[in-house]
Amino acid sequence: MRFSEVVAHLSQKISVTAKEGKNPEIKGVSPIEEATMQTISYIEGRKFAHYINITPASALILPQDETLQAQADDQGIPWVAAEVPRLLFAHAIDLFYRPFHPTPDVHPSAVIDPSAEIQENVYIGANVVVYPRVKISSGVCIYPNVVIYPDVTIDDRAILHANATIHERTQIGKDCIIHSGAVIGGEGFGFVPTSQGWLKMQQSGCVVLEEGVEVGSNSNIDRPAVGETRIGRNTKFDNAVHIGHGCRVGENCAFAAQVVLAGGVKVGNNVLLGGQSAIANQITIGDGARATGHSGITRDVKAGEIVSGSPAVPNHIYLRSSAIYKRLPEMYRMFQKLVKGSKN
Amino acid sequence: MRFSEVVAHLSQKISVTAKEGKNPEIKGVSPIEEATMQTISYIEGRKFAHYINITPASALILPQDETLQAQADDQGIPWVAAEVPRLLFAHAIDLFYRPFHPTPDVHPSAVIDPSAEIQENVYIGANVVVYPRVKISSGVCIYPNVVIYPDVTIDDRAILHANATIHERTQIGKDCIIHSGAVIGGEGFGFVPTSQGWLKMQQSGCVVLEEGVEVGSNSNIDRPAVGETRIGRNTKFDNAVHIGHGCRVGENCAFAAQVVLAGGVKVGNNVLLGGQSAIANQITIGDGARATGHSGITRDVKAGEIVSGSPAVPNHIYLRSSAIYKRLPEMYRMFQKLVKGSKN
Amino acid sequence: MRFSEVVAHLSQKISVTAKEGKNPEIKGVSPIEEATMQTISYIEGRKFAHYINITPASALILPQDETLQAQADDQGIPWVAAEVPRLLFAHAIDLFYRPFHPTPDVHPSAVIDPSAEIQENVYIGANVVVYPRVKISSGVCIYPNVVIYPDVTIDDRAILHANATIHERTQIGKDCIIHSGAVIGGEGFGFVPTSQGWLKMQQSGCVVLEEGVEVGSNSNIDRPAVGETRIGRNTKFDNAVHIGHGCRVGENCAFAAQVVLAGGVKVGNNVLLGGQSAIANQITIGDGARATGHSGITRDVKAGEIVSGSPAVPNHIYLRSSAIYKRLPEMYRMFQKLVKGSKN
Repeated sequence: MRFSEVVAHLSQKISVTAKEGKNPEIKGVSPIEEATMQTISYIEGRKFAHYINITPASALILPQDETLQAQADDQGIPWVAAEVPRLLFAHAIDLFYRPFHPTPDVHPSAVIDPSAEIQENVYIGANVVVYPRVKISSGVCIYPNVVIYPDVTIDDRAILHANATIHERTQIGKDCIIHSGAVIGGEGFGFVPTSQGWLKMQQSGCVVLEEGVEVGSNSNIDRPAVGETRIGRNTKFDNAVHIGHGCRVGENCAFAAQVVLAGGVKVGNNVLLGGQSAIANQITIGDGARATGHSGITRDVKAGEIVSGSPAVPNHIYLRSSAIYKRLPEMYRMFQKLVKGSKN
Repeated sequence: MRFSEVVAHLSQKISVTAKEGKNPEIKGVSPIEEATMQTISYIEGRKFAHYINITPASALILPQDETLQAQADDQGIPWVAAEVPRLLFAHAIDLFYRPFHPTPDVHPSAVIDPSAEIQENVYIGANVVVYPRVKISSGVCIYPNVVIYPDVTIDDRAILHANATIHERTQIGKDCIIHSGAVIGGEGFGFVPTSQGWLKMQQSGCVVLEEGVEVGSNSNIDRPAVGETRIGRNTKFDNAVHIGHGCRVGENCAFAAQVVLAGGVKVGNNVLLGGQSAIANQITIGDGARATGHSGITRDVKAGEIVSGSPAVPNHIYLRSSAIYKRLPEMYRMFQKLVKGSKN
Repeated sequence: MRFSEVVAHLSQKISVTAKEGKNPEIKGVSPIEEATMQTISYIEGRKFAHYINITPASALILPQDETLQAQADDQGIPWVAAEVPRLLFAHAIDLFYRPFHPTPDVHPSAVIDPSAEIQENVYIGANVVVYPRVKISSGVCIYPNVVIYPDVTIDDRAILHANATIHERTQIGKDCIIHSGAVIGGEGFGFVPTSQGWLKMQQSGCVVLEEGVEVGSNSNIDRPAVGETRIGRNTKFDNAVHIGHGCRVGENCAFAAQVVLAGGVKVGNNVLLGGQSAIANQITIGDGARATGHSGITRDVKAGEIVSGSPAVPNHIYLRSSAIYKRLPEMYRMFQKLVKGSKN
């Protein structure tokens, strides 16, 4: 496809500026560090400006930054720019990439209980196991070796990747994506200490994923003793995230890899949690709050607050305290001198 | 079932006090935040007292707390109470919840080596794979897509959830529960650095789970180069716990999600580890010790000690040091002023 | 096998010193804590010296340490020693342990697309699913219930353990080992925030594992939006490691359990990361650098540097700062006294 066609397609999605130049043939999108000819590549910001002078890419996606654009002009590289260049980059990939998506079909090796209800246009791969009373709606795609326990419902167009396990009574909303190895609706970690050891509490509740939720590979979302563990619409979890029994997570959140929510945590909408953040039992996190990676949250966090560290404190305090942490040895030495001086 | 019957059943389990009132019909147990009529709900303590005035629940489980009980009386809500109300709550769930448990049967799609020994009343689900010389005892329940490597033994009534993998020579005790995606007995991370790179050490040992051990979803327990990795009876692991090669964990421990034990760690009985705690190589943890979440333990911990932080220190020190951490910037400013003053 | 034969075999591998004594029969290798007669056991260093006086082991592997050797002589225990006794230990295990490795065969229950190319001497276990255009080279071993998405290539002698999932376009090099439940080539966590919520970026790239890479159980290595996520030859990952989209990891690295690399991280050769270490987006780590367990790396790390803590600082600073951390309460009290004194 000619670069002018690429620009035409992109401008149907978002508002763009472009300089088409020699209008080269574009065959794909490449990362700037390893760009090749006949591809369009992506300069995220000035940090990557030096690549403009050396890249073999035939065209560039740029931010709305006149300096970078002039630099591309100097190199004779045609470019297209937008306010959010990352969005342009996403749309450019869509132009060239055809993701693998199998044709609707039920593989003969799948073991499906006769009481399961399966609508049209569904793909069920090899060796999938479906227990009684499961409901699978239109356009759902279930990859091989997924196991679905009884009474699960899976709404339109949800995708379940290979080797995922969906436990009893889980409700999976429209357009959810469950990645490989994820376990949804497993038993919450509920034990009561007794003089004879741990007494296991039955976990009679269920997990509800609202529409558009995405759950990363090998993540775990547990069901509670009673009631629901609920994840709000369009919330996205990276790999190996753990959501304990009875948590309620709002809409449009994003949790990075290995985030842990203990039991009964309440998270508002639009909350961002960095990798390996952990939230203690029964804590409440307000809308739009953020935690940087590695945070250990042991108290409620207000709407819009940014926290860091373990135990987590407001981010602006963390930045200063952690800077001083490095100087503690020096501070301690001077401090001892002072104490000595004051005693004389 | 009438509330009076609920109370009668519960009092067969533990000592209870109750006020039966209008003796309503009870059809299930509900979480207090979303209780509905004709259910019994659970007030864990005074933190939840305000719910008593607004709940539509038809009955309540209460602690032995006269204030809360009087409050329920004022609202005309019948209640049942016990010293450990959480235990009452667990028994109440048992009254109403029938967990899914498949009828003994071996699915025709299971691939079972002829040398495997399988006793009576066993459930083996679809696509389970059983390698040579595996022994499966009476009442064991193996869900679909579990893979069992050679020479594994699985004792009475153990439950293996879907997509778990059990590696060679693992011994699983009576009444163990292995959750979905867990990997038991995989190769320990053993490499010797040489001038030609890492030399892989064969991992000829095995994992032993004593009776009543529970292993959370996507957890990993590795086997050692020689000898055993052993988990003591009734010890419970939450999801995504990692137990390195050659560890020995005692009885009745509970480890929360994403706990990591490096190689050769020795943990006593009744040890509690908070989420994302990690213990370094060859460390010893005494009976009844505890670590709060996110701890990084790099030295031995005595019996009964409570530790926190990374590197972990006694909890009472951690509480004070982490409180001062927040004030480091302020302290640093005043400190600099002092230094300046002392120089004049 | 007689001890003299054991020594003869070991001396073909590395340079050894030995005292053969009564030349006992040796039937296996045992851990020193639970050694039994007719086994050879391993004393790693002086920390374990007390075992020499009490062990029932018939022979010992020792370091080149005259004190320990004399101690064994006093007890009349024959021994063999080398500069790196751990290497001797590894070779000794090889002498006695026959790891399970199935005979080449394709199980009839495997579901293999006709367009897949499969070379000779391949083992494909029960219920393995192979999508179109996958290439499987000579000597590859794929355990049951592995799922391989389209266009994957698996080079000579690679081993894929049960329930692993390999996503589209992944390239697995010669002699790689993928442990159970690992997910290779899943979609990177790429979303662009828009006014309508998260926009999913297609992940059109792939994962490349060079030869000799080992990936632990339930680990996840994500593919990027464009280009590659690449792991260098002979690099080893323990369990539950997460490698984000677009990372590049060098050769001969070793990452312990639950290490997290966010997106676009660049790691040099021979880098060692302790358990639960995390590296933030786009960070660069130089050759031979090390991070101790639980580190949170938020800035570039130079070649050979050792870092610790979160945010990570040079290890020598961390050791001193964390020592003072414990004394903060005491320091704070004295400090307040000083401030008070200076005001008088």
